[in-house]
Amino acid sequence: MVDLAHRGAVADTPGPATDELEAEVTADTAPVQASVDVAALGRRLLGSWADVRTRGRALAADPALHPVAGLSLDEQRERVLGQLHYLVEHGQVNRAFPVALGGHNDHGGNIAAFEELVAADPSLQIKSGVQWGLFGAAVLHLGTERHHRELLPDIMSLAIPGAFAMTEIGHGSDVASCATTATYDPETGEFDLHTPFRGAWKEYLGNAGKHGRAATVFAQLITGGVNHGVHCFYVPIRDENLDFLPGIGGEDDGLKGGLNGIDNGRLHFTHVRVPRENLLNRYGDVAPDGSYSSPIDSPGRRFFTMLGTLVQGRVSLDGAAAAVSAMGLAIAVTYGNQRRQFTAGSDDEVVLLDYQRHQRRIIPRLATAYAMNFAHDEFLVKFDAVFSGAADSDEDRQDLETLAAALKPLSTWAALDILQECREACGGAGFMAENRLVGLRADLDVYVTFEGDNNVLLQLVAKRLLSDFSAKFRHADAGALARYVARQTATRAYHGTGLRTLAQTVRDFGSTARSVQTLRDAGVQRELLTDRVETMITELAQRLRPAAKLPKAEAAALFNSQQNSLIEAARAHGELLQWEAFTRALDTIDDPGTHAVLTWLRDIFALGLIESHLEWYLIHSRLSPSRALAVGAYLERLITRVRPHAQDLVDAFGYDAAHLRATIATGVEAERQDEAREYYRAQREAGGAPIAEKSRAPKKR
Amino acid sequence: MVDLAHRGAVADTPGPATDELEAEVTADTAPVQASVDVAALGRRLLGSWADVRTRGRALAADPALHPVAGLSLDEQRERVLGQLHYLVEHGQVNRAFPVALGGHNDHGGNIAAFEELVAADPSLQIKSGVQWGLFGAAVLHLGTERHHRELLPDIMSLAIPGAFAMTEIGHGSDVASCATTATYDPETGEFDLHTPFRGAWKEYLGNAGKHGRAATVFAQLITGGVNHGVHCFYVPIRDENLDFLPGIGGEDDGLKGGLNGIDNGRLHFTHVRVPRENLLNRYGDVAPDGSYSSPIDSPGRRFFTMLGTLVQGRVSLDGAAAAVSAMGLAIAVTYGNQRRQFTAGSDDEVVLLDYQRHQRRIIPRLATAYAMNFAHDEFLVKFDAVFSGAADSDEDRQDLETLAAALKPLSTWAALDILQECREACGGAGFMAENRLVGLRADLDVYVTFEGDNNVLLQLVAKRLLSDFSAKFRHADAGALARYVARQTATRAYHGTGLRTLAQTVRDFGSTARSVQTLRDAGVQRELLTDRVETMITELAQRLRPAAKLPKAEAAALFNSQQNSLIEAARAHGELLQWEAFTRALDTIDDPGTHAVLTWLRDIFALGLIESHLEWYLIHSRLSPSRALAVGAYLERLITRVRPHAQDLVDAFGYDAAHLRATIATGVEAERQDEAREYYRAQREAGGAPIAEKSRAPKKR
Repeated sequence: MVDLAHRGAVADTPGPATDELEAEVTADTAPVQASVDVAALGRRLLGSWADVRTRGRALAADPALHPVAGLSLDEQRERVLGQLHYLVEHGQVNRAFPVALGGHNDHGGNIAAFEELVAADPSLQIKSGVQWGLFGAAVLHLGTERHHRELLPDIMSLAIPGAFAMTEIGHGSDVASCATTATYDPETGEFDLHTPFRGAWKEYLGNAGKHGRAATVFAQLITGGVNHGVHCFYVPIRDENLDFLPGIGGEDDGLKGGLNGIDNGRLHFTHVRVPRENLLNRYGDVAPDGSYSSPIDSPGRRFFTMLGTLVQGRVSLDGAAAAVSAMGLAIAVTYGNQRRQFTAGSDDEVVLLDYQRHQRRIIPRLATAYAMNFAHDEFLVKFDAVFSGAADSDEDRQDLETLAAALKPLSTWAALDILQECREACGGAGFMAENRLVGLRADLDVYVTFEGDNNVLLQLVAKRLLSDFSAKFRHADAGALARYVARQTATRAYHGTGLRTLAQTVRDFGSTARSVQTLRDAGVQRELLTDRVETMITELAQRLRPAAKLPKAEAAALFNSQQNSLIEAARAHGELLQWEAFTRALDTIDDPGTHAVLTWLRDIFALGLIESHLEWYLIHSRLSPSRALAVGAYLERLITRVRPHAQDLVDAFGYDAAHLRATIATGVEAERQDEAREYYRAQREAGGAPIAEKSRAPKKR
Repeated sequence: MVDLAHRGAVADTPGPATDELEAEVTADTAPVQASVDVAALGRRLLGSWADVRTRGRALAADPALHPVAGLSLDEQRERVLGQLHYLVEHGQVNRAFPVALGGHNDHGGNIAAFEELVAADPSLQIKSGVQWGLFGAAVLHLGTERHHRELLPDIMSLAIPGAFAMTEIGHGSDVASCATTATYDPETGEFDLHTPFRGAWKEYLGNAGKHGRAATVFAQLITGGVNHGVHCFYVPIRDENLDFLPGIGGEDDGLKGGLNGIDNGRLHFTHVRVPRENLLNRYGDVAPDGSYSSPIDSPGRRFFTMLGTLVQGRVSLDGAAAAVSAMGLAIAVTYGNQRRQFTAGSDDEVVLLDYQRHQRRIIPRLATAYAMNFAHDEFLVKFDAVFSGAADSDEDRQDLETLAAALKPLSTWAALDILQECREACGGAGFMAENRLVGLRADLDVYVTFEGDNNVLLQLVAKRLLSDFSAKFRHADAGALARYVARQTATRAYHGTGLRTLAQTVRDFGSTARSVQTLRDAGVQRELLTDRVETMITELAQRLRPAAKLPKAEAAALFNSQQNSLIEAARAHGELLQWEAFTRALDTIDDPGTHAVLTWLRDIFALGLIESHLEWYLIHSRLSPSRALAVGAYLERLITRVRPHAQDLVDAFGYDAAHLRATIATGVEAERQDEAREYYRAQREAGGAPIAEKSRAPKKR
């Protein structure tokens, strides 16, 4: 499809001519003066719940909600608990709860506000999330009206801090296999909650280490000798003196890699009896006589429906990851625009962000942060539609799950990558706690494995993609698949926006600059990214096809042999979703100068993705070697174009000094550099500078 | 050179046939039973100073040298200071110092022992390094006999803890531009040390925050109105009550991202007077009348010679990074071999390390850790040869510098990558401080930017490669370059071990399996890795050629436009060095079973490198698309082969429970899993297990 000319050695493979690239970028953008309207872009970045976010961000600037350096573990935890009470006092925690109980039934706004707390302190965000987004949400979404009435007020007011006891030490991601049992006893009308062995201890639970007085406990519901699968139970765990109730035991997780404002801990149950009514019975109930009933017949679908109501954890982690990435970049870009090191042909030293490598490290990550922000807002809109009931069909819920499983891994990994690169880009200063980057990274670290391990989530995405694919080919043979692929390709060529266009351009014009230009076409970018997902899934479907006919163990082995490819395909899908969100967002940018800069940034995002998978595009003949070489060169050029706008782009995120709280982002570095330059300038003018030995003595070697 | 056949869409690009790969690996290895002699391999991994390391590692197992959880910042610092005294009392700190002063003049052994301390606590390693490897080494290597006699005894005994005051807040990597001045006053026979502005404060100095009583201060030596460049001065900073002496000021750096057992801090000098004799005058001296003399005429060479004597910091960071990587992998592999999650066609759940993705995450990193270990030992031998005087020509010293600048960045970055992947591979357990991974990663974080920022070091490597290259072509034109490249290629083909062979194989046999086999040929691997470095440097030299004729600023701009490529070329060089060390190490493995496993591991390292740069090999026509596709498939296969030996391979590193001190690596997880499996087995046998609802009810959807 694409011409793969024979290419010789070194001298035959230069990059595209610099002048041509230059001319092309300039010509392309000459009519518009690229410049960022920071205020307008800032409003756009606040997204669909801008007012809520603005208020939430103002709250996050409140020093009462900030961590204090040097506190002991106990003091940190008490401070964050106090901050939760402060949120209650300021009416910040009720948005998602029923109107009848003083809430607003506003699910999207609730998450938006909650995400803003990460700018105050990730421990505060997550401990709030445990209390109201997990413990409270389990009662809200898995319980029924009587639970709401009886339990939610104390949860909302923090009278009862609680733990969300789902994960077991032996079953992190595999919730369906959790081993805690809840056996109904019709004699007493009680459930008997029991931990059968050490691996079934509930583990890593926020609020369980110290503050929790109750827990929503996930356990296998057994009644009449039948296991109806995992259900959730409301279980008091500590008395008012915070001593464990009879039958409850546990341990404190102690120090962690981050989030040390939260008292994570372990819980176990030795035949703990709770009344039948403590079953959160929205999706499954047990009558006094022990008979089980559920509005959902399929145990599998029931399980996923129950878990699906708790998707908001993933939504909010995605948003928090986007927010913290923006904060990290704001710190590093500000410092990189002020810190000088080494001279380059003049008296003045060069600011870090003028170095090509520094730009390469920072600016593509800035593009990723924008993509994450825009994708997150769409994700939140989808979440709100499902939870408000505006669009909550089974398919909507499945789409939301898949979106969560695709975006949360990408954004949380990206946040760690961004924070680490920012920390390194700030050198030793980046390692100082006072500059925040190390602390934020430490806190965000666990985001990649909690609320669904990233690798496990991506497998869910891949399975969904495969099942969508196989739905089209339920009874198809390999021939049908091949015809499908051929047809897809033909269709693309016909529409004239796809790969054929790309190849044609090379052949027809023979100009590197012209053909590179094609890569800036959004249709071509979409085609390249989409094609990769589709092809990967098609290949996987072909390889996995024999599984249906194999014995269970062999089928599992075949599936395992493709696990890595499955995860890579899911990641490609997530990247496409981010790209699409970024591209749709461009249509909402009215200011032409801002639009020009953001289009470059979107192109950087797209070309960065293509560059990171370049070997795939080459192996699959989607890009010719010369085109592939142009990707990197063109990326460099776009980065240079965006560089003057880097400060505006991070300023538009809207985090001010009260959020960043990083000494190096306060302007102190510019003051130091200005003082140094002034010192040397005055010395030169006064003529009192010592002469350098090397400029005095004749050089010898 | 390599056939790039036109390749169609999906269906036309399958991976190499699994059966062929399988047959080939099996055939290849059938004569030898692959198995690891853990004890013998363990001895080999201890390297050239095995006895020293064995004793050092025994010492590192001593609880007196371990950190204690939950200490305040002050308590952590006092504990580590106490541990330094403990090292003194146990005679552990004198190896590098002169025999006359009770030392052993054993430079390699000193570093080997010092590196082992990282297994006790990275803070202990680094604070020891500050005291004896930087502060003490500056006096040793930059001072002369009178300094040794007068100053070293108190440094060796820790009577005078000291700081190494090189870095300034405004000049991290650019030491030559540091702004602190030391102006000689012939009237009094003193140097006047002065900090002219805020950016010249000495920063991030271990021992400066609290414990340091003196410092070796780097400052511009000015005498008679001439600046002779950076020299080092011994400067008392605090009295016996730890109060600053007159003219000295400073601040405590406070909390950092890690290494919080060390009291880093800032220092500044307000016309502090020190006697003329406090100049560490080995490479430059000032007579009482103010006249300057040096055994090295060129100020540039003098500067680099002085800095070169301090290369041991980089040596020891490289070794520590290798050690901590091994520890992290020992924890994650042990856990991955015990922790079970999800079933795959049987009653038992699968251990994590049996999942393809988990193997893909862990085993290539295990190969990297081995490469780092072997490369480090060669590095240390080279270091010892230079510092013992056995081979210390200018060229030897330059080679050592280049080796340090190439290996330290690769190993310190790899350590962070390995520790992070290990932490994620252990899920929530990985985030608990009790399992060590987060703490080790936090401590190692700064290794990538201190003792030379990794990106800056790699630029030094690239410049050395370029100058070696241009030395061959000092007066050559582009034509000569092209002929060189052509000749190189021809030579390779002639020798029959190179790329030509690779291409021939494809053409001659047309068999994927057979051609893939070629990639396991060490000569082919060397050729592919070497060719990439040479080609990148040749391309860079061509692009930078015009710089010689350009005005200074334009030349700087041209250089900057290639900065990213320079760094990538240097990284490729470092990877080649690691591969070569790994390959040489194979020759020292006598046991055939161990040799077979380590050869697979070396191949995984090589193929992993090639895979990570696959787009380069494709663009430069060094690999055909079908060959490129085979790289990943073959890597998967080799990983599967090594997987059963993973535990042996981490056990051979020789870190035991007293070093790892990670709860999850103690066998506790295996106990939990066994208990759980026994519970379910007993339940099945007793017939008392509840029936699953889904196996009872007819399925509905």
